[in-house]
Amino acid sequence: MDFKKQLEEKAAEIDKALNEYMPSAEDYPPVIHEAMRYSIMAGGKRLRPVLTIAAAETVGADPVPLMPAACAMELIHTYSLVHDDLPAMDNDDLRRGQPTNHKKYGEAVAVLVGDALLTRAFGMVARAGKEGNLPSENIVQVILEMSEACGSYGLIGGQVVDTIYENRVAQSEDLEYIHTRKTGALYKMAVRTGVILSGAEEWEINALTNYAGKLGLVFQIIDDILDVEGDSYKLGKPTGSDKKNKKATYPSLFGMAAAREKAETIARDAAESLRPFGDRAQFLIGLLDFILLRDF
Amino acid sequence: MDFKKQLEEKAAEIDKALNEYMPSAEDYPPVIHEAMRYSIMAGGKRLRPVLTIAAAETVGADPVPLMPAACAMELIHTYSLVHDDLPAMDNDDLRRGQPTNHKKYGEAVAVLVGDALLTRAFGMVARAGKEGNLPSENIVQVILEMSEACGSYGLIGGQVVDTIYENRVAQSEDLEYIHTRKTGALYKMAVRTGVILSGAEEWEINALTNYAGKLGLVFQIIDDILDVEGDSYKLGKPTGSDKKNKKATYPSLFGMAAAREKAETIARDAAESLRPFGDRAQFLIGLLDFILLRDF
Repeated sequence: MDFKKQLEEKAAEIDKALNEYMPSAEDYPPVIHEAMRYSIMAGGKRLRPVLTIAAAETVGADPVPLMPAACAMELIHTYSLVHDDLPAMDNDDLRRGQPTNHKKYGEAVAVLVGDALLTRAFGMVARAGKEGNLPSENIVQVILEMSEACGSYGLIGGQVVDTIYENRVAQSEDLEYIHTRKTGALYKMAVRTGVILSGAEEWEINALTNYAGKLGLVFQIIDDILDVEGDSYKLGKPTGSDKKNKKATYPSLFGMAAAREKAETIARDAAESLRPFGDRAQFLIGLLDFILLRDF
Repeated sequence: MDFKKQLEEKAAEIDKALNEYMPSAEDYPPVIHEAMRYSIMAGGKRLRPVLTIAAAETVGADPVPLMPAACAMELIHTYSLVHDDLPAMDNDDLRRGQPTNHKKYGEAVAVLVGDALLTRAFGMVARAGKEGNLPSENIVQVILEMSEACGSYGLIGGQVVDTIYENRVAQSEDLEYIHTRKTGALYKMAVRTGVILSGAEEWEINALTNYAGKLGLVFQIIDDILDVEGDSYKLGKPTGSDKKNKKATYPSLFGMAAAREKAETIARDAAESLRPFGDRAQFLIGLLDFILLRDF
């Protein structure tokens, strides 16, 4: 089966699970539940939960009991998009070709939707532990790491630098800081959640953590490239926003050709680090190519 | 030792612990860490973490290993205040007599401060488990309950009804819904965190949960009364805002005298439910009187 088909099947399973784990849109008070579902079910590539599931499979574990924890990764990702889109932050009107949450439901609801998704994400990891009978020690470890990866030294720190410092002269260190926190931290967390909850061995956890860090970097470089060269219809968002906002990006700092080459080198290194897992790593290696070659 | 002195001592211990557990204001990126500390260290009664500690003491447990989890309760409370104060929500300029977080640091930072405190709260419960050697099963249980109490059916649901429905004709059911979620849910969670992490028996957990529900109700009724009769200087916030915003309150629905009587009856019931704990319940019983009689 080719990679794209595998990815679609995995994403479809995540969609089904998300639909099941999210509150019903009719639950009181309905406006928040409808608005939570609006942003969660708006699609997207589901890369983070897929990473959790694929990481578990790469170390030979059964991914089924991990499903609520995998979905938690998507809740975190979506919460960060909803808050980042707010008028006080990036002030975006469109997300995946649809009105952003605050455009559709108003700012107050959008703030609360983000809060609710973040809050629910931690509960879903705990729920995976209870329903899936996973060792509580591993659940506590994942909660601790989630809190760090998403906190003021991680995801939120990245957003602070991205939003607050966006108009100062772009520094290469700022760029790296933002990328590792905003993209890398969540990819790493998604992968580590998969292997830690699988009860993997230390060397396996280290190898997959290394892979995830590199995957995040490749993703961000390509994102920057697509903001310059991409098709806004396929991307589902306007292009050129980095230049408009004078944001530091790989192409703006190193030039387009060097940025793409950098991405390819990092992807090769990442694939190499999965060699010990043999055929079981096929999907995660395929994901690197998929991200390198994407035009959406 | 009289109750007020005991409360002050407990609050001072919480302040000391919060100061220790919060990121240094110099940590990168400094704006978020300074702003987090600004709202957390702004004072307040620390009632929620004190409840966690006092609940543990009531069932005869050592409260020291619970300190990070107790502080997590204050982080949750503070995050909800920071987000509730935002222009899109209650649009408040003052909190505890000081400029609100967004007035001092701007809206973008205030949104992220709330997010960071919420995220850190879950991590601090996990940290209590690791550092205090508490059973991981109990940590997972507390995380699950925190996620529910603070989620879209709890704290956030209460804020949705409070903010979004504030201009419609006040219904008694709305009032009860808001109170149980916005105040009651956190008091209950703070108390349950204390007893669950203490490894208390089921009947103890039930008795203290019952107490906490009633304490929350008493607190909210008095809050409503003070919004009408209180001194805005002592309260550290403007009075009369409920009337201005046409919010449903106990005095507006039942009249002042009936509201106060209701609070007293509920407090007596709550004290009664702690009888099996004898002298160890002295502090929690004192807290009921303290809240009934407060003018700040």
